[in-house]
Amino acid sequence: MSSISPLARPFPELPDIGGVQLRVAEAGYKYSGRADLTYVELDEDTAVAGLFTNNVCCSPEVELGREQIKAGKARALIVNAGNANAFTGHRGREAVEAIMAQVAGHLGCEPGEVFVSSTGVIGEALPQDKAKAGLEAVFHAERCSWEEAARSISTTDTFPKGATASAIVDGKTVHLSAIIKGSGMVAPDMATMLGYIFTDAAIAPEFLQQLLAAANEKSFGCITVDGDTSTSDTVLTFATGRAGNASLSSFNDPGADAFAAALDDICLQLAQLVVRDGEGAQKFVEIRVTGATDDDSARNIGLSVANSPLVKTAIAGEDANWGRVVMAVGKAGEPADRDRLAISFGNTRVAEKGLAVEGYDEAPVAEHLKGNEIRIAIDIGLGDGRAKVWGCDLTHGYIEINADYRS
Amino acid sequence: MSSISPLARPFPELPDIGGVQLRVAEAGYKYSGRADLTYVELDEDTAVAGLFTNNVCCSPEVELGREQIKAGKARALIVNAGNANAFTGHRGREAVEAIMAQVAGHLGCEPGEVFVSSTGVIGEALPQDKAKAGLEAVFHAERCSWEEAARSISTTDTFPKGATASAIVDGKTVHLSAIIKGSGMVAPDMATMLGYIFTDAAIAPEFLQQLLAAANEKSFGCITVDGDTSTSDTVLTFATGRAGNASLSSFNDPGADAFAAALDDICLQLAQLVVRDGEGAQKFVEIRVTGATDDDSARNIGLSVANSPLVKTAIAGEDANWGRVVMAVGKAGEPADRDRLAISFGNTRVAEKGLAVEGYDEAPVAEHLKGNEIRIAIDIGLGDGRAKVWGCDLTHGYIEINADYRS
Repeated sequence: MSSISPLARPFPELPDIGGVQLRVAEAGYKYSGRADLTYVELDEDTAVAGLFTNNVCCSPEVELGREQIKAGKARALIVNAGNANAFTGHRGREAVEAIMAQVAGHLGCEPGEVFVSSTGVIGEALPQDKAKAGLEAVFHAERCSWEEAARSISTTDTFPKGATASAIVDGKTVHLSAIIKGSGMVAPDMATMLGYIFTDAAIAPEFLQQLLAAANEKSFGCITVDGDTSTSDTVLTFATGRAGNASLSSFNDPGADAFAAALDDICLQLAQLVVRDGEGAQKFVEIRVTGATDDDSARNIGLSVANSPLVKTAIAGEDANWGRVVMAVGKAGEPADRDRLAISFGNTRVAEKGLAVEGYDEAPVAEHLKGNEIRIAIDIGLGDGRAKVWGCDLTHGYIEINADYRS
Repeated sequence: MSSISPLARPFPELPDIGGVQLRVAEAGYKYSGRADLTYVELDEDTAVAGLFTNNVCCSPEVELGREQIKAGKARALIVNAGNANAFTGHRGREAVEAIMAQVAGHLGCEPGEVFVSSTGVIGEALPQDKAKAGLEAVFHAERCSWEEAARSISTTDTFPKGATASAIVDGKTVHLSAIIKGSGMVAPDMATMLGYIFTDAAIAPEFLQQLLAAANEKSFGCITVDGDTSTSDTVLTFATGRAGNASLSSFNDPGADAFAAALDDICLQLAQLVVRDGEGAQKFVEIRVTGATDDDSARNIGLSVANSPLVKTAIAGEDANWGRVVMAVGKAGEPADRDRLAISFGNTRVAEKGLAVEGYDEAPVAEHLKGNEIRIAIDIGLGDGRAKVWGCDLTHGYIEINADYRS
């Protein structure tokens, strides 16, 4: 891994999840001297839910995953790091199907219960021989830690990323442990976001899918590094049911709200960790939008601001350039009225009613912008819609990573 | 002006346009030692058409201009450089109205026939005293050249920009001469695109508006520097009628097609000049999309590619990273099929059917990418929709201009 992001967080203590076994091995797809094949074995009757990239030019793993998820059952997860297997046509699809068949043979399950993700170099089909030998090795490997698994799924990430949450459901404590990789999209790889959440809660797959989609709206759907969208982005949630709670199937079930809150929480932690490893990021930016006509409008405005190269460079330059924020609000295509806008940096209101606040105290603003956790608040002044989004600054580091490179 | 863009073009010889008089003066809004107030006096009965930014947080000049354009008549254009008069509330609007009244008094016309644009620093109302004295000076100034006027409307532009075209209409040669400024959006200014086209053709304002809107679709609507949208972008076209042709009012009139083609041509020249002065741009990029489901879809795909930070940094890095192009096609939200895509750099097909072309000749691709005029062709393989869009690379220069700066 290259030099660690200044916004990194230490890897937390994650509890084991009953019914989940982690193993890693070296398949040698691209890297040497590190694990690059991750194998997660799941108990029978594990429920699964998943979300996949909206990019229409997706990888075969994503195409297959979208189909597999419909049955709602999983026995294994395989993650390949170093080769994205994207834009590889039928050979790429065959490589994924071979992995599914091999793991299914080992476990005695259906191939459709084996979920596969790949991340890394594009345009080269995943080498079937390396995958096959890697799987043979990983089946017999010792079980490993969450942190080892988090490192094994990483590509250009500068630090391993994990999160945990818990809830009381039906009198039982259920745990969630998760790992994620992603740091923007890196040349020549598609440095894809791949996130995996494991819980011992018992929950019906349809309800799990509903909760995951809702959690996504306020987490992965509210982050941006560069506005580009990987062709392989995937978030999967596996529920083994080993906690022994009465299975959750709707919000009418006791503890469903608590589980949903825990899932929201862990998704938000994971999403923010990805932003903290944004390419070249020196500052983590939270944008809070209030007063929009509705929540979706607020989120679109927030993402327009978070994605604006001019806002992102202003933050890199520690410049309280509220005019660029107004510009980015105005181009979002959402209802806004220049003369009702109010903008704050940190705790200081710098503009209101579309005008600079006369004689505002610049010292705390300058102090806030020197830090690496930046808060921008935007009040649209039209309604009750609100959203928070998270992004990062745009620095020379981004250009270095993505341009000062030849494939 | 700072160091000249490597993509700059020399200022062309522009013909005088009958009924158009150019004058400049120093109002001292921000700069010293250069003209910053441009005054164009137009013959009576000059028709006008205009297009304005879609940004909902627009300047008072744009708000007023949108209203003025409805009457279709113009006697004067005023351009202020150094102060954008944006986010300045009622004081900003009063400053514009004072200019309109003063010029109308001088010419004996209606204030609504006086069009005003401003570009430069935001958040400070245009100083009325400087504008008033500047106008008094400019009314009595000598007439100046197109190049002097092009320099006078510039802010962060690194070179003055002009274009010309002509057509035979009704047996008469009609001329079009135009100036434009813009170079992306520059801190702390909104470095707004302001374009002005002058012609001696006789044409009804409604038809001129129709032609300008159509020309815009294939020119200003097809360029991008950073995807950000100024709050003041304006393109105005003035037609004095001095060429003596029978006035054009529809495509049924002889010469209407020729005039439309000339207007298309001059708009495209102007649009490309703005891209050539893109902040930090080292390479001019043409993206040709064919085979989309329709032309709008092709344009959206082209703009998604041209705006992608990962594509733009790959071009800066002279990297034939077709995977990033596929990614940007896929995220455009338009119909596409990964397995039908074909991509060329220069004249070399590097990917087709969603796969790298085996053993393609890398030498001409590397040679093409070393140049500063880059062509990327994308065939979607689904239909007949086509578009060309123009953009530039994303370099350290962009970060330097926009981040290494304190307001």
